[in-house]
Amino acid sequence: MANMAEKADLSSKIESKKAVVGVIGMGYVGAALADLVIAHGYKTIGFVTRRERVEAIINQKKKNLSATTDISKLKTCDIVLICVQTPVDENKLPDLKFLKNASEQAANNLQKGQLIIIESSIATGTTRNVVLPILEATGLVAGIDFYLSFSPERVDPGNKVFDLGAIPKVVAGLEANSLKLAVEFYSQIMQRVVPVSTLETAEMVKLFENSFRLINISFVNELAGYTKSWGIDMWEVVEAAASKPFGFMPHYPSPGIGGHCIPVDPFYLLDDARKRGMNLSMIEEAGRINDAQPVLVASRVYEILKLRNTEEKNESLASPPTMQMLQLTTSNEELVAVVGEKGGSISSSSVDKQKVLLIGLSYKPDIDDVRESASLKIWELLEKAGLEVSYHDPFVPEFKETLSTPLSETNVLNHDLVVIATNHSNIDYEELAGYNIPILDTRRVYKISKPLNVHYL
Amino acid sequence: MANMAEKADLSSKIESKKAVVGVIGMGYVGAALADLVIAHGYKTIGFVTRRERVEAIINQKKKNLSATTDISKLKTCDIVLICVQTPVDENKLPDLKFLKNASEQAANNLQKGQLIIIESSIATGTTRNVVLPILEATGLVAGIDFYLSFSPERVDPGNKVFDLGAIPKVVAGLEANSLKLAVEFYSQIMQRVVPVSTLETAEMVKLFENSFRLINISFVNELAGYTKSWGIDMWEVVEAAASKPFGFMPHYPSPGIGGHCIPVDPFYLLDDARKRGMNLSMIEEAGRINDAQPVLVASRVYEILKLRNTEEKNESLASPPTMQMLQLTTSNEELVAVVGEKGGSISSSSVDKQKVLLIGLSYKPDIDDVRESASLKIWELLEKAGLEVSYHDPFVPEFKETLSTPLSETNVLNHDLVVIATNHSNIDYEELAGYNIPILDTRRVYKISKPLNVHYL
Repeated sequence: MANMAEKADLSSKIESKKAVVGVIGMGYVGAALADLVIAHGYKTIGFVTRRERVEAIINQKKKNLSATTDISKLKTCDIVLICVQTPVDENKLPDLKFLKNASEQAANNLQKGQLIIIESSIATGTTRNVVLPILEATGLVAGIDFYLSFSPERVDPGNKVFDLGAIPKVVAGLEANSLKLAVEFYSQIMQRVVPVSTLETAEMVKLFENSFRLINISFVNELAGYTKSWGIDMWEVVEAAASKPFGFMPHYPSPGIGGHCIPVDPFYLLDDARKRGMNLSMIEEAGRINDAQPVLVASRVYEILKLRNTEEKNESLASPPTMQMLQLTTSNEELVAVVGEKGGSISSSSVDKQKVLLIGLSYKPDIDDVRESASLKIWELLEKAGLEVSYHDPFVPEFKETLSTPLSETNVLNHDLVVIATNHSNIDYEELAGYNIPILDTRRVYKISKPLNVHYL
Repeated sequence: MANMAEKADLSSKIESKKAVVGVIGMGYVGAALADLVIAHGYKTIGFVTRRERVEAIINQKKKNLSATTDISKLKTCDIVLICVQTPVDENKLPDLKFLKNASEQAANNLQKGQLIIIESSIATGTTRNVVLPILEATGLVAGIDFYLSFSPERVDPGNKVFDLGAIPKVVAGLEANSLKLAVEFYSQIMQRVVPVSTLETAEMVKLFENSFRLINISFVNELAGYTKSWGIDMWEVVEAAASKPFGFMPHYPSPGIGGHCIPVDPFYLLDDARKRGMNLSMIEEAGRINDAQPVLVASRVYEILKLRNTEEKNESLASPPTMQMLQLTTSNEELVAVVGEKGGSISSSSVDKQKVLLIGLSYKPDIDDVRESASLKIWELLEKAGLEVSYHDPFVPEFKETLSTPLSETNVLNHDLVVIATNHSNIDYEELAGYNIPILDTRRVYKISKPLNVHYL
């Protein structure tokens, strides 16, 4: 009956807000969650690896929030939230080292009656098949001695409409006791909790949501190549279609999807499906299209620079890479080869050593996160093909020892082309368009009465 | 200046509701549109080919609505709406014979100052490249002597939330005069009009909207096969994901998409893209998945019938067709071969001549339209593999000389399996589940506390 008593104990601690919450991984997910937890009166400890991060958190002087590098303090926590990153490696295979490490830390400090909750996005079955064995290697039994839940984070960085507490929380438990406790906890801090029947269902929900976005954005990008061949503006098509009040949701063309989730999570699914002898062809195709978008941007850069040179030097215009060429390429290596080849044929005479100013490094507006950002891939492609690249990003002052270039007229005009890769809201695009330099606008910053020096993708 | 006068004339007739409107093609789109037009006080003539259809329309005694088979009466119309069907043939290539025929009828009766509007869903460029030359072969010049517009129908049969007038209307014109007049007309009968810049943009909007649905439904169906291998219910996943208040729109698994639009329109795009040397891989894959759904249903029928036989006769259970087998098949012919083969190996001993009752022939609930319905494909597959199929559909009393079987207990129990292919709302599913017969529920009619004799797809 010990477990009944401990469960009742945790239950009452949750209700009375006496439960101490530990957060492993204080990245943007863990930090946002910790803010929500302390806002509801729970004492919270952030577990981090670097001393400076402890100081940074403590210096925020948030009530109820502390931070430590001392992982043994996990023993003092009633609830442990694991919010570490779960990236994919260069072959798009899941890299679970952070999750395994956090699970081992939790196991090493596991206490009777603790509730362990995984928030990281993971492949189907990972909580049960990876995390659970690590925790039970202690000899403690889940559902009896401790409790295990999976509840996928749905943080949307930069979303000003829905704050974290307003986004319904999907929650699963290993068994009934774990589910009950996790639902009790999230019900204290979230406006709505959506319990589901199994850990795997909850894992799948998150993968599905992000796959939905990859599928739809890639589909629009694929169609944009087609409509361009007709002289149809895909942006106008999407905006007109968005007037349909049912059965449609707009997604817009882009230089490629970035971030820690959408270009990553769907490949957990694809990897696992392949292991089971299935293919998920829609995800596979969407991934291929998304990988090709930065190449499309790079090839437009060449088109525009070449065009400009032609105007200035009256050279003949080399034909740009065709959609077919892009569609035939299957890996980043080959993509570079295509652009390189085109670039080569042009650059030796004219494009070489021209300078490109890339505006926006982060993967979406008004945040500083550059993970998987299309901008970085565009940068790499342009440099490999012999162009000089600098960047401006008000949210990313420095990247790999390069500083953000301030947007003065002199600085801008020191380049041959500006590429708007991310549409941060705190940039004066009107002033930029007034400078006498061609601009490649991949984000439709210039919608109404497009200036003559602005080119669309 | 004659055209200015005629344009002004039509414009004032639209405003004063004195314009006479002709509708070629009084199917569900033309009829719904005619109802809306007469509701706003315009005299309207429906042009049909069969005498009985004229009588049926006249017998409705709707104010301002008449009907005729006399196509020369088009001469009396100020505005001609072409609402004929535009199917694809068995190779999924656009079949434009109805549209060309209607365009020729309009051309043969073309009057100075007339506005011709195409509402049928068509491939990009069809209004300009197919309809316009037919009309201008008269010697009259579009934009001067007559006006040409494309405005895609967005009728959603059975939609009780949005009536036709409440669905925003995307409108394009060949040139400014045509656009202006078409916008004036639709503004009289629609709550919101969305003008777009070119005919091709408007054509693309409709193709895009329906492709969005094909893509998303097929993606869910593909994932459902994967989640099933994990014991995860894809319906539960979709419903939990639907709690996300942004960036997601739910689509549910199904036995295959039917109707005149979604399984058809995307292939206009695919066909044209291929002619241009491009592939639209997302549409291609989605089409392949959708084609395979009826096979999945057929293979589940075998599984269940076999299972039942095993229980009754204690035979060994043949393994059902795997997802891999289904994924490898690429055409309907091959799909039949797979099911046939499996069916053959089972049917010779046990499944042959068992009887299946198919509930719902129409492609969606509470309508009578069976075009491209998955039910018909399931029927064909089961019959080819040696099963006897009968059907029940309250909206389709007769199909190809077979009558709908009334749902009495005796009738139902005269079968070995019931397949719910379409979830009409006027069927007593609870009573049905009470009969002692296995039910394959492809539409999740039985959601809460599923009866033991009900099987999911």
